[in-house]
Amino acid sequence: MRIALDAMGGDHAPEAAVAGAIEAVRRWSDLEVRLVGSTSGIEPLLRGASEEDRRRLPLTDASDRVEMGESPVGALRRKASNSISRSVECVAKGESDALVSAGHTGAAVAAATLGLGRLEGVRRPGIAVCLPTLKGECVLIDVGANIASTPEDLLQYALMGSALAERVLGRAHPTVGVLNIGEEEGKGTPLVLEAARLIRARGLPYHGFVEGRDIFQGTTDVVVCDGFAGNVVLKASEGLADAMFKMLEGRLLKSRVRTFGAFLARGAFRELKAQTNYAETGGALLLGARGTCLVAHGRSNPQAFASALGYARRCVQGRIDERILEGLRTHQPVAGAS
Amino acid sequence: MRIALDAMGGDHAPEAAVAGAIEAVRRWSDLEVRLVGSTSGIEPLLRGASEEDRRRLPLTDASDRVEMGESPVGALRRKASNSISRSVECVAKGESDALVSAGHTGAAVAAATLGLGRLEGVRRPGIAVCLPTLKGECVLIDVGANIASTPEDLLQYALMGSALAERVLGRAHPTVGVLNIGEEEGKGTPLVLEAARLIRARGLPYHGFVEGRDIFQGTTDVVVCDGFAGNVVLKASEGLADAMFKMLEGRLLKSRVRTFGAFLARGAFRELKAQTNYAETGGALLLGARGTCLVAHGRSNPQAFASALGYARRCVQGRIDERILEGLRTHQPVAGAS
Repeated sequence: MRIALDAMGGDHAPEAAVAGAIEAVRRWSDLEVRLVGSTSGIEPLLRGASEEDRRRLPLTDASDRVEMGESPVGALRRKASNSISRSVECVAKGESDALVSAGHTGAAVAAATLGLGRLEGVRRPGIAVCLPTLKGECVLIDVGANIASTPEDLLQYALMGSALAERVLGRAHPTVGVLNIGEEEGKGTPLVLEAARLIRARGLPYHGFVEGRDIFQGTTDVVVCDGFAGNVVLKASEGLADAMFKMLEGRLLKSRVRTFGAFLARGAFRELKAQTNYAETGGALLLGARGTCLVAHGRSNPQAFASALGYARRCVQGRIDERILEGLRTHQPVAGAS
Repeated sequence: MRIALDAMGGDHAPEAAVAGAIEAVRRWSDLEVRLVGSTSGIEPLLRGASEEDRRRLPLTDASDRVEMGESPVGALRRKASNSISRSVECVAKGESDALVSAGHTGAAVAAATLGLGRLEGVRRPGIAVCLPTLKGECVLIDVGANIASTPEDLLQYALMGSALAERVLGRAHPTVGVLNIGEEEGKGTPLVLEAARLIRARGLPYHGFVEGRDIFQGTTDVVVCDGFAGNVVLKASEGLADAMFKMLEGRLLKSRVRTFGAFLARGAFRELKAQTNYAETGGALLLGARGTCLVAHGRSNPQAFASALGYARRCVQGRIDERILEGLRTHQPVAGAS
């Protein structure tokens, strides 16, 4: 299991990425993490690693870095030797089985889509995240790869999201919901109405329309939406979780009794924070490209990098790509139906 | 100040609505709440009210009720004497200054738009909610009145949302953001790109694009979006807040020490719940119709009904309509510019 890690990506690069990689190779003995970035910047950070660790932490030099404000396509063109493109190359050449980057999402998606190509039959890759729900976890796809989605794209996201739910979350027969503003059939945008019809017609285990609150209720294993809606929902949820912790903290510090109570119950807060922090639970997975590409959170700390590497490892082991191709073959349009 | 209350709307109707109305007239001495619904069902519930309270709780009979699963337009047509339409009539006839309903949102929006008409110059009414942020509150508009929004609609939502932020939240010069998948100019759907251009061209205090997480950070006073995105964001946020409380509760009950700690700190949880529960902080306000129409949460309890009535009262006092008309006049297209 060999994963290329963009060591220059993220707010705390390269320190957090390298520390996360060291943690990851210690945690998983079958794992090799290729550190892609400025070799001279990375080497001093490897001093803490043992000889044995170092053998599973090869380096690939990449001097450039795509900055967060840059336009992805322009930056990829201008900076030929950027760490994202180099990581993608490692996968394209078969040197690595997957890549992980906490850098520019748009650049990672563009580089992976162009550099790896799409799986046969896939129209547009989509980005999937696993979100915590009252029943466990659910897959939300697409969260921003494609903001001009067609009904056929949403159908393919349903297949891709199901493959992830099956192979990584371990659901035997994942159910699929289409995100909408109401549960009633016949209500919604032309996009979701037609997507629902297609998903039903192609024989997927379709639950029906779901609303925003169903995501966290865990009503279905997979929630499908266009990249605009998915992105704003994901970021709003992240922002709300963050705001709620801050609001709670402010209120807990209002009196000594409350502060003492919070101290006694601190484990509960820590656990909830870990559960609702999607940085810690993995990252955003590009589905539909030939190869596994995981975008970790920009704010990732070493622990988040290690989690992302572990998640990428599970995704490769789950052979999601294989399952997507199988799904595309099985759910072909039926002649005369759709 | 006279408000018509749809006493048949909501999961706990008519009990919760009537109890909320009694609480409201006790709280605000200038308030009259007209209870619109089945008179025979409501009267027994008024036994607890004093003679003085009763004088400010007149009744209007409405035997029918729009059920949650019904298609709004069909139901309004079939059930001529439904409590929502009757409440709208009270406002249309000048008998009431505003209406509050916890019933079918789609039916309330349709009945109010048709029954009251639109303010001059308004293309499509929008629904606004006030959400808690780290800096106070922010207005999110539209959360579901209009899922086929045009850039011009979004511009008008910016004006309407600003009127609400100014007159009810007390912001002197509300800032406006357009919800998008990134902050960079030039990124986003044609709808948001053109809306941003229009808002800027018409001279509103435009902040720029905002992302989902900015809503709860309080980056701007008003966040504008199409009704589909707004609806899924609002409901996802509601669902997440709810799920987080349940997840936290489960973790707090895992040991006796934690449970005791939570008991000591219980005031903080109660306060946070009230702050993040948008049912308690008011409801969804229809803006752009001639008259104030507030849709309270379906799960409203008496306290939520009283809050909604208080919020409607503040909206009428703030003369939001007047401010919207003023805004529409001020921000007319400049010849040769937009």
